[in-house]
Amino acid sequence: MRAVDCIVKKRDGGSLTRDELDWLIDGYTAGRIGDEQMAAWAMAVVLRGMDDRETADLTLAMARSGDQLDVHDIAPLTVDKHSTGGIGDKTSLVVAPLVAAAGMPVAKMSGRGLGFSGGTIDKLESIPGFRAELATAEFRAVLRQTGLVIAAQSADLAPADRRLYALRDVTGTVESLPLIAASIMSKKLAAGADCIVLDVKCGAGAFMTTLADARRLAATMVAIGRHAGRRITAVISSMAQPLGSMVGNALEVREALATLRGHGPAELVELCLTLGSELAVLAGRCADHATARDLLRATLASGAAWRAFRGMVVAQGGDPAVLDDPARLPRAPHQLLVTAPRPGIVQAIDGAALGHVVNRLGGGRSRKGAAIDHAVGLEMLVRLGDALDAGAPLLRIHAAGPAAAAAEVPALLAAITIGTAPVAVPPLILELVR
Amino acid sequence: MRAVDCIVKKRDGGSLTRDELDWLIDGYTAGRIGDEQMAAWAMAVVLRGMDDRETADLTLAMARSGDQLDVHDIAPLTVDKHSTGGIGDKTSLVVAPLVAAAGMPVAKMSGRGLGFSGGTIDKLESIPGFRAELATAEFRAVLRQTGLVIAAQSADLAPADRRLYALRDVTGTVESLPLIAASIMSKKLAAGADCIVLDVKCGAGAFMTTLADARRLAATMVAIGRHAGRRITAVISSMAQPLGSMVGNALEVREALATLRGHGPAELVELCLTLGSELAVLAGRCADHATARDLLRATLASGAAWRAFRGMVVAQGGDPAVLDDPARLPRAPHQLLVTAPRPGIVQAIDGAALGHVVNRLGGGRSRKGAAIDHAVGLEMLVRLGDALDAGAPLLRIHAAGPAAAAAEVPALLAAITIGTAPVAVPPLILELVR
Repeated sequence: MRAVDCIVKKRDGGSLTRDELDWLIDGYTAGRIGDEQMAAWAMAVVLRGMDDRETADLTLAMARSGDQLDVHDIAPLTVDKHSTGGIGDKTSLVVAPLVAAAGMPVAKMSGRGLGFSGGTIDKLESIPGFRAELATAEFRAVLRQTGLVIAAQSADLAPADRRLYALRDVTGTVESLPLIAASIMSKKLAAGADCIVLDVKCGAGAFMTTLADARRLAATMVAIGRHAGRRITAVISSMAQPLGSMVGNALEVREALATLRGHGPAELVELCLTLGSELAVLAGRCADHATARDLLRATLASGAAWRAFRGMVVAQGGDPAVLDDPARLPRAPHQLLVTAPRPGIVQAIDGAALGHVVNRLGGGRSRKGAAIDHAVGLEMLVRLGDALDAGAPLLRIHAAGPAAAAAEVPALLAAITIGTAPVAVPPLILELVR
Repeated sequence: MRAVDCIVKKRDGGSLTRDELDWLIDGYTAGRIGDEQMAAWAMAVVLRGMDDRETADLTLAMARSGDQLDVHDIAPLTVDKHSTGGIGDKTSLVVAPLVAAAGMPVAKMSGRGLGFSGGTIDKLESIPGFRAELATAEFRAVLRQTGLVIAAQSADLAPADRRLYALRDVTGTVESLPLIAASIMSKKLAAGADCIVLDVKCGAGAFMTTLADARRLAATMVAIGRHAGRRITAVISSMAQPLGSMVGNALEVREALATLRGHGPAELVELCLTLGSELAVLAGRCADHATARDLLRATLASGAAWRAFRGMVVAQGGDPAVLDDPARLPRAPHQLLVTAPRPGIVQAIDGAALGHVVNRLGGGRSRKGAAIDHAVGLEMLVRLGDALDAGAPLLRIHAAGPAAAAAEVPALLAAITIGTAPVAVPPLILELVR
C-alpha cells in the first residue's frame, strides 16, 4: 500500500476501505506517513467528504491508535456525556455527579478549553487543590472509591487524533463534519464508556450554527457509536444564548454548585435532567425517560448529587471548604456593570463573541498550554426576549482590573442586539437523536 | 498574513492575491511555511482550480524564488523551446542548433528524464565527454563562443518549484493543470529567454492524452508567458505514435544527427521547422512563417545547423569524433527483432508503454539520481496505418543482454495494436496557439 494512492483515491471521490484507513492511521501514528501526506488527505476529505462507513472506520482506527481505557473490572457498565462545546456550558459538572449518585458509574476524560469555548478541566481546576492530571492507578482508585472520576484526557488516548487535530488546525482542514465527528468519537470510544449521551450544541454560541449541521453531526456520531457497539443517543440543544447566567471558570463552578444544591437556573436543570435521563435509560437503570427524570430529580433534591461531586473533588485533592462555601472560589478583583444603552427587547446574544471576551479577559487560551485566570468572566443579567428600559443591567464583567473590564464594553454591547421586534425564543431542547 | 488563511481561502473557492502568493512562495522557499501547509494548499488547488491571473502570479513568484538567468549582456535577444515530453522526442537536439545557426542565440536549461519520458540532458550525455553540469561562468562562455549552450538545470533556478514538485509527487497533487503550467513556466521564466515556443504533446505517448487538456495547458502557459512580458506561442503536436523511429538516449542522438545532416524522418523535420519558424517570427528574425521556414530549410541544408551542434558539443567537452561518425555512439550489445504475430493494419501504438519498456531496459529512471544505460532503446519499424504481413518486422529492441530483451517482448506486442479497420492517422501538428 502507498499513502499517495490512498490520497488520490479520496481526491477523486472514492471511499477508503477499512484496511486502507487502518494502514493510514497506523502509519501516521508510527511516523511512517508524514504530516504533508495526511494534510493533503485531510484537504481531500474536507472537499470530497466521507460516507458513514468510512467515517466509522476512521474513528475506530484513531480510537485504537493508543491506550484504551477499560474499567470493567471496577464498574461493569459506565456512562459518559460529551458536549460539542458552548458558552456557559457547565452541564458536565452537574450531570456527571447526578448520574453517578443515581447508580451509574462515570469514568470521564475531559478536555481543556481552546478557542472561544471553555473546558470542564479548566473549570474544575478553579477549585484550589483539584488535580486533573491523574495516573491510571489513581484514576481507577478514585472511581472505585466514589463511582465518579473526571480527569484530563491522557496523551496516550487516541494519539492519532491528537496529532491529526493539531495538523488540521494549521492546514485549514478543521471544517469537515466527518473529521469533527471522528475526532470527538475516537476519544469517547477510547475512553471506554458503554453508554454515551452527546449534547450537540447549535446556535450562535456553538461550533454548529444551523440545525441542519447539528443534525448531521449528531446523526454521524450516533452512527459511529452504534457501529462500535456502544449504546448512544444525542440531544441537540440550543445555544441561541449562554446556558445559565455564568460564563467563566470559577463563575461556572459556582453556578454548578448552586444547581447541585437545588438552586440552579431552570434551563440548566432541564438540560441536565434530559441528558441524565437519556443515560439512565441507555444504561437500563430506568425503563423509560419519565421514570428516569423522577429518579434524577429526587437525586438532586436529596443532596446525593452534590455529595457525589464533593466526594470526587476531595478524592482528587480539591479543598472541601470551597465546596461548602462557594464564596471561597477565586473572585476577580474588579466588577463592572454594563447597562442597556437604549430601551428595547433582547433580540440576539452572540455567544461566540462573549467567549472571545472571556478569552481576552484571561479566562481562556488562544494557544495550547497557556495559563488562564480562573476568576474572570461574565455574569449575564438578561435573556433573549427580555424587555429592557434604557440603563437596565445587561451583564456584569468580572475582570482583573478596571482597564481590562472597560476595554470589553464595546464588544459586549455589540454582542447583545436590542431592538423593537417581538422575539421567538427557540426551545432549549431542539431534537433528540435516538 | 497567516498560511492557514491562504489555504482556507483557496479551499473555499477563492482566488489568492498576488501579495498572498508571493508571501506563500517566499515563506515556503525560506522554510517558514511547512510542507504540510503547502500540501493542503496544493490539494485545494487540485480540487478548486486557479484562475489565469492567479496561475500567472504563482508562476512569477516561483520564477523569482531563486537565481534568474540573465545573458542579455552576451545576447540581446535569446530564444528557447520547451516540450511537455513525449516518446522519441529528440526535437530540442535539432531545433536548438537550427535556430542558433539561423542567428538566434539559445541559452537553454534542460531536465533529465523522469517517469516514462526521456530528457534532453540524458540524451546529450550519451556523447562521451559531454558535460551538462556547467557553472555560470562556463555556461556564459559557451554561449559567447558558439551562440548555443544546453546545460542541466541549476538547483538554484526556481527552487520553490523544485521543492513543490517533490511534494506534489508524494501527496497526490500532480494532476492539476494550473500547477503543471506554473511548474513548467516558472523554470522557463527564470531561465530568462525572451522568445519561447512550447511544444505541447498530446496523445498516448504524452502526459496530456486529450486535445481538450492539451489546449487548456497550452493556453494557460501562453497566458502566463505574456503576463510575464515574454513573446510566446505554443504548438500542439500529436503523440499518437513516437516521433521518428528511435526511442532511447544514444539512439535518439543518432537520429538527431541524421536530421541535422539532412536525412531526418519527415515528421521530425516538419516539427522542427514548425517550432523553429515560430521562434524566428517571435524573435523578429523573419517577417512571416513562410520566410522563416525557407531560412531554416536552407540552414539545415547548408550544414550550418549541424556545425552549430558540433560546436556546442565540443565546447562542452563532447568527443567530436562521435559526431563525425555516429557509429561510435554507445551501442547496446544485444538486438532483438520483434515481428508481427498476425497480418493487419497498425491501429494504435501505446507510447507510454514503450517509454516504460525503455525504463526497464535501463534507459530511464524511476527515481531521481539513478544511473542509466545510454545505449539501450527501441527502433520502431512501423508507423500507424501500416499494413503488415504476419512476421513483418515491428521494431528492434536494443538491450544489455538477451534475457532483458526477451522479457519485454510481451509488453511490446501489447503496446502495438494490429487490426483490420482502416486507420485515420492524426496530423502531426494539431493546433497552433499564438
